[in-house]
Amino acid sequence: MTRYQHLASLLAERIERGLYRSGERLPSVRTLSQEHGVSISTVQQAYYLLEEKRLITPQPRSGYFVAPSKAAPPLPALTRPAQRPVEITQWDAVLDLLSGRMEVEEMLQLGNGTPDIHQPTLKPLWKIIARLAQKQDARLLDYDTLYGVRALREEVARLAIDSGCQLSADDIVITTGCHEALSIAVRAVCQPGDIIAVESPTFHGTMQTLRGFGLRAIEIPTDAVTGISLEALELAFEQWPVKAVVVVPNCNNPLGFIMPEARKRALMTLAQHFDAAIIEDDVYGELAWEYPRPITLKSLDTDGRVLLCSSFSKTMAPGLRVGWMAPGRYRDRALHMKYIVTGSSAPQTQMAVAAFIRQGHYLPHLRRMRHRYQRNYETLSCWVRRYFPCGICVSRPQGGFLMWIELPEAFDAVLLNRTLRESKIQIAVGSLFSASGKYRNCLRLNFGLTLDAKIEQAIVTLAQAVERAMHACSDDGISHKTIKP
Amino acid sequence: MTRYQHLASLLAERIERGLYRSGERLPSVRTLSQEHGVSISTVQQAYYLLEEKRLITPQPRSGYFVAPSKAAPPLPALTRPAQRPVEITQWDAVLDLLSGRMEVEEMLQLGNGTPDIHQPTLKPLWKIIARLAQKQDARLLDYDTLYGVRALREEVARLAIDSGCQLSADDIVITTGCHEALSIAVRAVCQPGDIIAVESPTFHGTMQTLRGFGLRAIEIPTDAVTGISLEALELAFEQWPVKAVVVVPNCNNPLGFIMPEARKRALMTLAQHFDAAIIEDDVYGELAWEYPRPITLKSLDTDGRVLLCSSFSKTMAPGLRVGWMAPGRYRDRALHMKYIVTGSSAPQTQMAVAAFIRQGHYLPHLRRMRHRYQRNYETLSCWVRRYFPCGICVSRPQGGFLMWIELPEAFDAVLLNRTLRESKIQIAVGSLFSASGKYRNCLRLNFGLTLDAKIEQAIVTLAQAVERAMHACSDDGISHKTIKP
Repeated sequence: MTRYQHLASLLAERIERGLYRSGERLPSVRTLSQEHGVSISTVQQAYYLLEEKRLITPQPRSGYFVAPSKAAPPLPALTRPAQRPVEITQWDAVLDLLSGRMEVEEMLQLGNGTPDIHQPTLKPLWKIIARLAQKQDARLLDYDTLYGVRALREEVARLAIDSGCQLSADDIVITTGCHEALSIAVRAVCQPGDIIAVESPTFHGTMQTLRGFGLRAIEIPTDAVTGISLEALELAFEQWPVKAVVVVPNCNNPLGFIMPEARKRALMTLAQHFDAAIIEDDVYGELAWEYPRPITLKSLDTDGRVLLCSSFSKTMAPGLRVGWMAPGRYRDRALHMKYIVTGSSAPQTQMAVAAFIRQGHYLPHLRRMRHRYQRNYETLSCWVRRYFPCGICVSRPQGGFLMWIELPEAFDAVLLNRTLRESKIQIAVGSLFSASGKYRNCLRLNFGLTLDAKIEQAIVTLAQAVERAMHACSDDGISHKTIKP
Repeated sequence: MTRYQHLASLLAERIERGLYRSGERLPSVRTLSQEHGVSISTVQQAYYLLEEKRLITPQPRSGYFVAPSKAAPPLPALTRPAQRPVEITQWDAVLDLLSGRMEVEEMLQLGNGTPDIHQPTLKPLWKIIARLAQKQDARLLDYDTLYGVRALREEVARLAIDSGCQLSADDIVITTGCHEALSIAVRAVCQPGDIIAVESPTFHGTMQTLRGFGLRAIEIPTDAVTGISLEALELAFEQWPVKAVVVVPNCNNPLGFIMPEARKRALMTLAQHFDAAIIEDDVYGELAWEYPRPITLKSLDTDGRVLLCSSFSKTMAPGLRVGWMAPGRYRDRALHMKYIVTGSSAPQTQMAVAAFIRQGHYLPHLRRMRHRYQRNYETLSCWVRRYFPCGICVSRPQGGFLMWIELPEAFDAVLLNRTLRESKIQIAVGSLFSASGKYRNCLRLNFGLTLDAKIEQAIVTLAQAVERAMHACSDDGISHKTIKP
């Protein structure tokens, strides 16, 4: 390796690790020459090489700048939660997050799980709802069956083929959103006091459901690319009477990964070996950016131990409150719990969703949303690289519309959120996603929304607040410079 | 008292006690004269007197018949459940009742709790739903707040004034039907293993909710006119650590009584003395036939211990799944449980109900339904008196659309239901309404439906099946004659 190649690879590594951030000016040729004790032409050649690789761009009379798309911050490392069953707390923080919904008009929600419901491909739904009402079909006002509207269950079974599942309408129970599906699944499988294994971090709704039913959670280390650590899960199975494991293997919330198929198979084998149920939350699965969509654990299920939970809340609209589950061998208990929790779901929205799918609107809408969220991700990544200080780790989601950002250990996102309240901005604090209050230094962002100038400004405000807080809470020598927009 | 007066009062008593049933021919003048050793003219005078009191009607050349509306069967006596906390079973039977909903088209449901959703006063609701969809208001598709749509909470607070309650929109949490409200209320107040006192019989949905949360129920004797026995409840409070009591004080399900106001006050005092919460199910309260409607326990609540639960399922339409609760001092825990159970409710139906009330459609609809159900009750009573065998007790509801029939002790309504399946008729079996499997000899009928010839025929079929079963299971000398239609 020549001198200039060596220098180029050194600089490339620094860019990759985020020490030079997207859009930032690189040191001058003269400075580098002095710093590394090489000739000016060597530095020039190194810069030409990096330019060729599109890692940097020259700007006349200003020098070289890090190219916008090439300076990806590193991924969060494998998480290391306390691996013993714990009581779940954090309800106050969840309520705090939800209270942002109270003043919807005023507060800019950067942290919630709301999809984009303003796209033209969703418009036919309005017509369908209006037409259903105009027909005055009395079934819309009557009690539904406990299972849900048959036409919808048939459509759900058809859609599930894409995730590798062979389901019939009778295998499916319609629920009031995926939230109720998860709530029912947990109750169908466990008794109060039982232990459930969860990914760490994990969706706060699931966590609160476990808490509400008096369960203890054991948080399993989870990798931002490959998902739940099977080694740690096996250890947990050996040490504790774990009844079930709750996972979001596709477009994980909040980490965004899609668990590789081999690991999905290994997880199934593990669950079979220790005779544990699997509660699979696939609510973001259809929003995977790759095509065809990834398979579910349910598709690998040979003995009915997987309770697959999903909904149309993320793919269509959350206000419909139309979810579903395929509870496998727990069907009878799931029906019982459904009866206990809400009795039955509203037929009207079920019939509307069924018509939307049957009339061929659903798949084109899904396609549009997948592309849109992927583009939004690229935009948000760019903003994060540009405006956030160094020393952060960022998830690289493969679907959905959620981004997880890890700040330095000493950082307190709960305090950050309080500070942001003045600017009428809200994020989801990482500690919501842990039973034991971990991830206080993390936050979740939503890039489902239309990323306009207002949101960009909010990201700038957020990034500035993060930087100020990092300055205040640490003096560990990390560079805190940011380029102002 | 003269001879003829004495004879008349004797006959009147027999009619009252159901020994001579509605529409049945009374003994001839000659027969009575011989039986009682009185002159023919004395019998004639006695019959004239009864005719004057409209207890009987003469028919030319046929003699005297019991007037249709005057031969009310006796009320069920004060119930006598096993007064110790029991685990709740009966889920299979509930599923059986619900499974009738599966084949809605075929099975004639005489036992469920469905209101009449076909009245013209409900029609504006269709227009409202269609108009909401045409406006394409994005809030309809978005996540709602945890509390529910504010406009609806304001309307609910206004309506609650009629039941004596001073509530504000902030006191109210919207739920997915009253079912979810009850489910949340129970969870907000209790921990698994706790003991809850309930009326006996009590709504099977409540019972299953208690079971689903791992609670034990202590069934309290309940009178068909005055409601839960306060004496027995006090004893239960003294003997067991009862956390809460669940009651339906207005238009009770299934007994139909309205608890007298003095007893409501006494119940409040009792709950305060033993520091127990009261979960009040008022879902039929607005359907009381008297005007103004009876007060709720909530209206007497001075320290926030009453969790009032209700919905628009019985007054408007169950398919809307719009319920609400006023959880008093348990508001924070109720919100937490709401989050756990379904997250939030669908905004669309909430906005539709709010508009229906605000536009002035609700109260006229309510008025119509109250009158209608009262008329239906008179018709069904008449049919029951005419077609059912003697020896039964029947509730005298003061609102709502449910009738409770008690058959002789040895009777098995579960078997009866199985027999009726061939005729595609379903009733609600009494044992559903008990934690300990009591009331197997009882059944609940719905008179909310339009009582047409088809339903009359179903009541005839039911009455005949009851009569056959009573013949088969008893030889205790009760008269089993019925008049065929």
